[in-house]
Amino acid sequence: MSRPTIKDVAERSNVSLKTVSRVINNETAVREKTRQKVLRAVEELNYQPDLSARSLRSSKSYALGVAYDNPNPYYIISVQNGMLSVCRETGYGLQIHPCNSASPNLAEELVDLVRHSRLAGLVLAPPMSERLELIKYLAANDIKFVRILSAAEDPDDGFPCVFVDDRDAAYDITRHLIQLGHQRIGFLWGGPSHRSSPERYKGYESALKDYGIPIDKKLIVPGDYSFEDGFRGARKLFALKDPPTAIFGSNDEIAAGVLAAAKSTGIDVPNDLSIAGFEDSPFSKQSWPALTTAKQATEEIARHATLLLISELARAEDGSLDAPAAKNKGFSPQLVIRGSTARPRSLGS
Amino acid sequence: MSRPTIKDVAERSNVSLKTVSRVINNETAVREKTRQKVLRAVEELNYQPDLSARSLRSSKSYALGVAYDNPNPYYIISVQNGMLSVCRETGYGLQIHPCNSASPNLAEELVDLVRHSRLAGLVLAPPMSERLELIKYLAANDIKFVRILSAAEDPDDGFPCVFVDDRDAAYDITRHLIQLGHQRIGFLWGGPSHRSSPERYKGYESALKDYGIPIDKKLIVPGDYSFEDGFRGARKLFALKDPPTAIFGSNDEIAAGVLAAAKSTGIDVPNDLSIAGFEDSPFSKQSWPALTTAKQATEEIARHATLLLISELARAEDGSLDAPAAKNKGFSPQLVIRGSTARPRSLGS
Repeated sequence: MSRPTIKDVAERSNVSLKTVSRVINNETAVREKTRQKVLRAVEELNYQPDLSARSLRSSKSYALGVAYDNPNPYYIISVQNGMLSVCRETGYGLQIHPCNSASPNLAEELVDLVRHSRLAGLVLAPPMSERLELIKYLAANDIKFVRILSAAEDPDDGFPCVFVDDRDAAYDITRHLIQLGHQRIGFLWGGPSHRSSPERYKGYESALKDYGIPIDKKLIVPGDYSFEDGFRGARKLFALKDPPTAIFGSNDEIAAGVLAAAKSTGIDVPNDLSIAGFEDSPFSKQSWPALTTAKQATEEIARHATLLLISELARAEDGSLDAPAAKNKGFSPQLVIRGSTARPRSLGS
Repeated sequence: MSRPTIKDVAERSNVSLKTVSRVINNETAVREKTRQKVLRAVEELNYQPDLSARSLRSSKSYALGVAYDNPNPYYIISVQNGMLSVCRETGYGLQIHPCNSASPNLAEELVDLVRHSRLAGLVLAPPMSERLELIKYLAANDIKFVRILSAAEDPDDGFPCVFVDDRDAAYDITRHLIQLGHQRIGFLWGGPSHRSSPERYKGYESALKDYGIPIDKKLIVPGDYSFEDGFRGARKLFALKDPPTAIFGSNDEIAAGVLAAAKSTGIDVPNDLSIAGFEDSPFSKQSWPALTTAKQATEEIARHATLLLISELARAEDGSLDAPAAKNKGFSPQLVIRGSTARPRSLGS
């Protein structure tokens, strides 16, 4: 029998020559079922034996992906820059994938993304990184990933991650406000789909409890990690009969919204109102007054997540998955005190 | 003679089995010279005939790339989002490539990027897009690209682009300040490597000339498109014996720096100083007072550049390069008047 040709493959799999060519060139406009049929014919006919099947299937990837759902441009750019610093050193490209974390098809979407774009692996930013069923689905589909997530300690759930202790840093910010003399401290929540939101809230709550200050639910406003929600939330608090003397916004965007709301109402910051944010974004240094915040080393966090991912890929490639994995790592944001927080006016200066 | 094996290829090209395997799997840690040697042996031995050589070389790409060098996160995120909106519709991934436009090896770097990451094509943001020798090098290397650039009209140089009329919009901003009654208007330059900088300067200069206001070089300060340079430039202008009553910052980041400098010096905006920016970034709406600026539809511009690129790719794929190309398109930023500009105090209200 003569060597099988592409025509033999097309006949055997009952598809057009063009479709066989598409499958063989790893093009994507082919349904998975058809692709499998063609690959089966390729194998059965021993068309391009040895190598073909392997190279068709493994077709090496040299890009990593990052998936996020966050309205804050400074955070996203920092994550990208941190990842890119490692990508450059290791020769990987970086594909970006902002997604809607509320989408019911997110798990399939991410698997499709990795296969379609032939990504070597993913870094998952919050909140995708914090959904255990999503994580398990990715792992079951043999997708390599590393998570960035909000947690006071290593979740130790068998999946690699970099974890950020938001709770502890939020405790420090709240304690700083209490130690300045504030008793009525407003809290503006971040996005409810992000685990960092309850973590930061818990830090706020613990500090108040430790200092014997009762929780006043009227001072606590739900919202998203956005300027607009900071603005709206602050206006709500200003309208209270007994408004707060300090507001802790769950990130710098929220705090920037509080600052704009204060200015638009003629409230003097920090004398009439102290404001604290979270993240230490460039904005927090550029606003007037500059914002007290927690320095979250986002670039460094993304960089470590990428190094972790690359070590996972190396283990998978060597087939040394039984070898000890690279270590998960925790980061603790640090309190940075700037001009936006001061003693409440009622206490004098 | 029995069918050639990978070992035969390794012997003939005088490299290791591992290297042959790397080349065949399209891995990248192989020097181009070595890769060529191996591919030659593959062809000479007729190893994996027909398909092998073709699939190794053509291996279809489903990602686009974007190259930029800009310190402004809002601009970058808008470019990414505009491109992603088209990528999602067309099934492409998006790889990001921030680069140093001052690098002497930039042209080779971009060609390597496209080949290594197997990108279908590139969108080039300023300033890379504005270097004709770079553009020619990419074209000579058969890289598909579309440029976003600053120009008052279609450069009509045979390479596809989306062009933004910065000059006209800067003229409108300056005229707005003149019509309010300002005669001493400071100008803070953007990055000298971006063509938008001289374009915006020309708009400023023309408006002053048209209204018979002499150019005062002391009012014109060089710098980059950054908050820091806005802050520094404004401080310089404040220190003049006869300081300006209005400052036109070449983008919103610069204008934000001017605003912070004014606040830190106790200068009342807009009563003592009018400030205008350029871009209509989210920040320009969030600052207090909000910034007068030119609305530059960055997402829409990036979106159109991507559509243009995809039409270029389709022409190339069909081999219909003689068919008429999709049309270049021009965008004109529009003046947006907000609270940061007003009549100078000297004229009363």
